[in-house]
Amino acid sequence: MPGAKPIAETLAKKQKEISIAEFFERNKQILGFDSLTRALITCVKEAVDNALDACEESGILPDIFVKIETMDGDEYKITVEDNGPGIVKSQIPHVFARLLYGSRFHTLKQSRGQQGIGISAAVLYSQLTTGKTTIITSKIGEGFPAHRVELLIDTKKNLPRIVKEEMDHWERRSGTRIEIFVKGKYVKNRKQSVYEYLRSTAIVNPHACIIFIEPDGTETVFERVVEELPEQPREIKPHPYGIELGTLLKMLKETKAKKITSFLSGDFSSISPQKAKEIVRIAEMNGNLNPKEIGLDEAKKLLAASKKVKLVSPPTDCLSPIGETLIKRGLRKETLQLSPEFISTDTRQANVFSGTPFMVESGIVYGGSLPKDGRVELLRFANRVPLLYQEGGCAITEAVKSMDWRRYGLEQKGGKGMPCGPAIILVHVA
Amino acid sequence: MPGAKPIAETLAKKQKEISIAEFFERNKQILGFDSLTRALITCVKEAVDNALDACEESGILPDIFVKIETMDGDEYKITVEDNGPGIVKSQIPHVFARLLYGSRFHTLKQSRGQQGIGISAAVLYSQLTTGKTTIITSKIGEGFPAHRVELLIDTKKNLPRIVKEEMDHWERRSGTRIEIFVKGKYVKNRKQSVYEYLRSTAIVNPHACIIFIEPDGTETVFERVVEELPEQPREIKPHPYGIELGTLLKMLKETKAKKITSFLSGDFSSISPQKAKEIVRIAEMNGNLNPKEIGLDEAKKLLAASKKVKLVSPPTDCLSPIGETLIKRGLRKETLQLSPEFISTDTRQANVFSGTPFMVESGIVYGGSLPKDGRVELLRFANRVPLLYQEGGCAITEAVKSMDWRRYGLEQKGGKGMPCGPAIILVHVA
Repeated sequence: MPGAKPIAETLAKKQKEISIAEFFERNKQILGFDSLTRALITCVKEAVDNALDACEESGILPDIFVKIETMDGDEYKITVEDNGPGIVKSQIPHVFARLLYGSRFHTLKQSRGQQGIGISAAVLYSQLTTGKTTIITSKIGEGFPAHRVELLIDTKKNLPRIVKEEMDHWERRSGTRIEIFVKGKYVKNRKQSVYEYLRSTAIVNPHACIIFIEPDGTETVFERVVEELPEQPREIKPHPYGIELGTLLKMLKETKAKKITSFLSGDFSSISPQKAKEIVRIAEMNGNLNPKEIGLDEAKKLLAASKKVKLVSPPTDCLSPIGETLIKRGLRKETLQLSPEFISTDTRQANVFSGTPFMVESGIVYGGSLPKDGRVELLRFANRVPLLYQEGGCAITEAVKSMDWRRYGLEQKGGKGMPCGPAIILVHVA
Repeated sequence: MPGAKPIAETLAKKQKEISIAEFFERNKQILGFDSLTRALITCVKEAVDNALDACEESGILPDIFVKIETMDGDEYKITVEDNGPGIVKSQIPHVFARLLYGSRFHTLKQSRGQQGIGISAAVLYSQLTTGKTTIITSKIGEGFPAHRVELLIDTKKNLPRIVKEEMDHWERRSGTRIEIFVKGKYVKNRKQSVYEYLRSTAIVNPHACIIFIEPDGTETVFERVVEELPEQPREIKPHPYGIELGTLLKMLKETKAKKITSFLSGDFSSISPQKAKEIVRIAEMNGNLNPKEIGLDEAKKLLAASKKVKLVSPPTDCLSPIGETLIKRGLRKETLQLSPEFISTDTRQANVFSGTPFMVESGIVYGGSLPKDGRVELLRFANRVPLLYQEGGCAITEAVKSMDWRRYGLEQKGGKGMPCGPAIILVHVA
């Protein structure tokens, strides 16, 4: 045995667990809080995303109210209110003041926020920068009381801390309101702003009515132009073409199926019992094996075999496209005052990339009083959410740049790069 | 009471907690695993960062061995071995197979990895893409046995799962080896590659010897050129100029100080007892108050007051600059075969931005057989870590672009943007 105490033993004492809330407190930038301007936009975005998702899930046409008020110095108060289904009292603290908690994480279906991080990250940012509680008011239906809860996050434990809780009267039938105080910077007349985020959101959500009150009191109403809700995307099972080996192993361990063939046909989309047998045959395995007994090598064979069998594409009704007509209406109402020459839209058929279905929709607004010189305006969306940042690293931007727009009467140096001319180009990837 | 059951109650049942491991499994891109090429670089980087940090913390000149081997298809085996202090047996599973666990998170001092995520994220990525265990071998000193552990992460619980554990004989005095299997893509001759990452790492760590064996068997030795370790950065306390209100509130709650004045002078850097009294006086508070009794409004006053008092800058010995001589030596050894005309370096004095100390060091290699046309090569570093991605969004890039390089004989259109000419520019922000 050695004399001196190994350094490793001293170092071991410093090893500690970190709570997820502490981690994000230190790494704000990865959640979209890297500048004061962006932090304000992110908070509004998380609240509005939640409001839209909640309304749609419950078949309610969204009426959303957004207000930003100036407080002390660089502090702002953000209020976002919806007419959604409300949140039951016991869940309010967890939904808003606990990171990694949510209803959409484990499902394979499109929604705006699916990470279980969004709104609680905003609450975390709020308490970090202003020390204030976030106030949630929610009512779940006619005849129920409204509950008003003031919350903080216990960052050491990543659990909600309820500071105050009371019943309240609220005229609304049902809905949720969040009042949150954050350090931020309110900017106008530029692409990366709360106004532009809401305008873009309104374009791709023509079934929503959004009222926005700016710090100087200016009120903007983004009107609803269609009275039907978009079709709700369906949950789907994973498709074998797009799955990682590690995920397959996990599914094998967790399945309720007793045989490998029923596992294949039951837990995946696009595998019929016949195809399941074919896969097992190619993998040279016994179809009656218990999935729980499948090891790494056999799982690998199974995955390889399933890629050799011709399977139909996954269903695409897990997607939430907007549709040509609605994109056109959305664009029209937001560009009315520019009296454009024409608005044209196109929706491609859904397609599949390595097992993951996707769909591209596009629209163009041309002429009128749109500026004739200068770059076209590019509106990028993913799952109905406007993309305001990182234009340079975006596949949509690349696609637009790689087209020769000169054929369509726009200016473009060498037929590559961002075109110039009086146009707005919209691309939505669902 | 209403008749129909509110939708909110149905929705509430879907709310679930998500483990951090599941979260990152789904959001690989935020940890640097967004493409096969980058995933491979990230895994090597996390292991090498850990190896360098461990050696330096223990006063050991790093000898690091990196090997990448081709396995099946797009699977690679990465081996990284160091001569560091080793890790005690009981800690091995936690360090490598548990996210948000580490020794560097709670300290205010520079190190390469400080997030408690890095290497476990690589292990997570490995099991997701290959289903294989990661193998750790570690020995903590002469006379101790080596321990060999095969690990997976239980993603549901974010806890290590030990698959196999045994004692092993290892010639080394002490050290750690990680063997990890990942899906990746090995590329050569481009900036974003394992080779370039290691070359850049070698330039800013001239005290390290790094041996690299590529999949085709090519061996490169990045030699050690200095025999002294860089000075170890010191831990410092936070400076009031750079602190958020939320952090102050947390510190007030957690402090061991009994009076607000001793809290200020004891828990911050650069506040003397005199300055503490001055701050309290400006805030119109009683200096004998118990910090735990300070509320939000008083904390705000305290923060505002501390910004009105002239305080000395925070100490900068928490930084780990490389130093002019060493940057020069690092650049020289890696550009020897280009026989450059000259190599010049400069280190600015440490500075403070909103309470956070930082320091900029730079170097330039000019002439020789460096290509005369085409953009200069820009080597960016933060805390001795090469930055290979997102050049466009980086402050270093902006700074280089905003200089008029024509005065120094480089070509530059309009005196703005990336200059062209036979030069390599290195910038390190510590």
